[in-house]
Amino acid sequence: MNWKNIAAAQSGGPTCAINATLAGIVAEGGAQKEIERVYGYRNGVEGLLSGRYADLTNLTDEDLRLLACTPSTALGSCRKKLPTPEEDPGLYQAVLDELEARKVGAFFYIGGNDSMDTACKLARYAESKGSGLRVIGVPKTIDNDVMNTDHTPGFGSAAKYVATTLREIIRDSQVYDMESVTIVEVMGRDAGWLTASACVLHTLGEKAPHFIYLPEAPFSPEEFLEDLRGALKEHQSVVCAVSEGLRLADGTYVAENAQSGVVDVFGHRYLSGLGKYLENLVQEKIGCKVRSIELNVLQRCASHLASAADLRESSEIGREAVRAALRGETGKMMSFTRIPEGEECRWEIHSVSLDGTANQVRQFPREWINDRGNQVIPEAASYFLPLMAGEVSPPRQNGLPRHFVL
Amino acid sequence: MNWKNIAAAQSGGPTCAINATLAGIVAEGGAQKEIERVYGYRNGVEGLLSGRYADLTNLTDEDLRLLACTPSTALGSCRKKLPTPEEDPGLYQAVLDELEARKVGAFFYIGGNDSMDTACKLARYAESKGSGLRVIGVPKTIDNDVMNTDHTPGFGSAAKYVATTLREIIRDSQVYDMESVTIVEVMGRDAGWLTASACVLHTLGEKAPHFIYLPEAPFSPEEFLEDLRGALKEHQSVVCAVSEGLRLADGTYVAENAQSGVVDVFGHRYLSGLGKYLENLVQEKIGCKVRSIELNVLQRCASHLASAADLRESSEIGREAVRAALRGETGKMMSFTRIPEGEECRWEIHSVSLDGTANQVRQFPREWINDRGNQVIPEAASYFLPLMAGEVSPPRQNGLPRHFVL
Repeated sequence: MNWKNIAAAQSGGPTCAINATLAGIVAEGGAQKEIERVYGYRNGVEGLLSGRYADLTNLTDEDLRLLACTPSTALGSCRKKLPTPEEDPGLYQAVLDELEARKVGAFFYIGGNDSMDTACKLARYAESKGSGLRVIGVPKTIDNDVMNTDHTPGFGSAAKYVATTLREIIRDSQVYDMESVTIVEVMGRDAGWLTASACVLHTLGEKAPHFIYLPEAPFSPEEFLEDLRGALKEHQSVVCAVSEGLRLADGTYVAENAQSGVVDVFGHRYLSGLGKYLENLVQEKIGCKVRSIELNVLQRCASHLASAADLRESSEIGREAVRAALRGETGKMMSFTRIPEGEECRWEIHSVSLDGTANQVRQFPREWINDRGNQVIPEAASYFLPLMAGEVSPPRQNGLPRHFVL
Repeated sequence: MNWKNIAAAQSGGPTCAINATLAGIVAEGGAQKEIERVYGYRNGVEGLLSGRYADLTNLTDEDLRLLACTPSTALGSCRKKLPTPEEDPGLYQAVLDELEARKVGAFFYIGGNDSMDTACKLARYAESKGSGLRVIGVPKTIDNDVMNTDHTPGFGSAAKYVATTLREIIRDSQVYDMESVTIVEVMGRDAGWLTASACVLHTLGEKAPHFIYLPEAPFSPEEFLEDLRGALKEHQSVVCAVSEGLRLADGTYVAENAQSGVVDVFGHRYLSGLGKYLENLVQEKIGCKVRSIELNVLQRCASHLASAADLRESSEIGREAVRAALRGETGKMMSFTRIPEGEECRWEIHSVSLDGTANQVRQFPREWINDRGNQVIPEAASYFLPLMAGEVSPPRQNGLPRHFVL
């Protein structure tokens, strides 16, 4: 082996588990004799290009425990869209030079679909130059929309947040003796996994959410109003969960006219205001008490409500990534396979090719949505529940969670 | 004693602790030999007027433990504003008749300022009729704005939610390598206690929230922009906490005429909240990345993050209310007095007259706000911290909190 160090970086939107994966990489780096130092590049590929990094080798076990339950990205993140190696080979060579200068032989990129694309391009460029650099993608996203894995790190905690807070919102919505509609807007631009996870409340005996609307089923404002009118005959308080990425049958976003039209560097439209739009629609067409609630960034950063299963597996997938690199793998993404064990399940971690994974979106299965397109079927709950299992007790100070800050 | 039963009702907005107070009343009712049955009237005075109640006498200890950590109001609530006894004596007589028919000798009304007013009127009417009914108000509100008590049940849990989630939002706001402003809107129309509680984060070493704006200090949009511009020179990510009840120097609400400028498919302008208004202001005048987050109903119903001190004291004040009624008290509100004990403190529970308490708003002390009116001084943290102390582990099912539903 002609290299002795490894490096990691984090990219994309924050989650509760992306630091657990980083902690797993650092811990495994420390456990492997061949590895001398573990570096963390700041702000994803931006740090790689500007040489900004932190040496994480000497983090103590206590540091790593605290890091693992700190939300957001300890190394910072970026949303930089890379050109292809053909468009800008100099950029890729600069990354290779930076890593070579630090004797880094394996680089781990923790992120979502866009980051897997970046990792894939970097791996192929390194191979084409015969550099020997090993590049491994480690998925994370609350959207759960990465291909070729049972789930993504960070999703289980986000789903636990959505289900727990939705249950509390249901209690809140039932206090007054009057008809009311509550609309809860959940993140998920292209895939409805997170919104769909609210279906687990039905296994606890909740009638609500009475409706769950996902991007995978075309949304009709007229049918939505029909749904609500019907439900209000049976229930005084009607609660529905809606994904921010709802689209009409013609493919346009429902909230398209209620947004600024601002587009991010990947060409994604910023969605906001769907809940408010539907609230106004109900107000005008039905006229009962109506409230919309946007769960906002807390669904991705509420570590105080993290899933123990999620943090454990997110750390483990980081450790496995280091082992895969030591076996000589590159151009791979780490992936979970679900192994059913009676009523329970466990996960095995393998690697899959980044080529067949990046630049695709894994959608929520249409067969887990009812025909009307307004509810998730009961069978889906057994997919979600194991991912939300177990509680974490983050270290506290003055009754508030402590966080790790680099 | 010519009566043998007691009754309670809940009123006003939900909190995490109003059911703990109800559980305290039911438990103490069960412990006192003189008391035969404990009734709970549904939807506050509405249930008293329509005779809708539940018999709570036989709730088990396990029921009561679950009830105590269930958010919102198990009995339902109302926002009915009562006329005075002079305006509508028939209404008050109907309440007296209802309670007499059930042999209820003591009635406990759990609620905020408006409910204390109702309890006061009912107590005085009962006295004037020589009915012997004892009426005790038990405060609750996340606003903490009831007079003549150190704090109100429900406030500590709401403050713990605000501080915990704000710390998580601070981590989330720091991920990208770019200037940004994050505006967190906290409930509190007339008093800034809940927003001010965010100051405890400074005791944990957080620089953020860099600014805290409260209804108790006149707000100037120009000074707000000046504050932000100055802070952005020192900090890449600036976070501020704003109370929904911010007012201009002339007393009008800042968001009174605020419209976001977004127009929906019907051509209607969206009315927006304070946070969105300030977000648009920063977008237009400073132009950096800016996000507003409305904590919404979760700050009053997130029992998964309840303060152990709050739930314990909220239950205890319910028990003390029953003891006060048994001592013959009426027209009283139960109240906390803070007893300092070195660095810590404890609370004693006494009763105060409802006459001097109802229809007033206790504001956050101006001397705990800095001269510029944009930050809470460090000394205030020691008021808040004991109220947020300790964690609650609510009973769970499938990784999600269980709730008590009547």
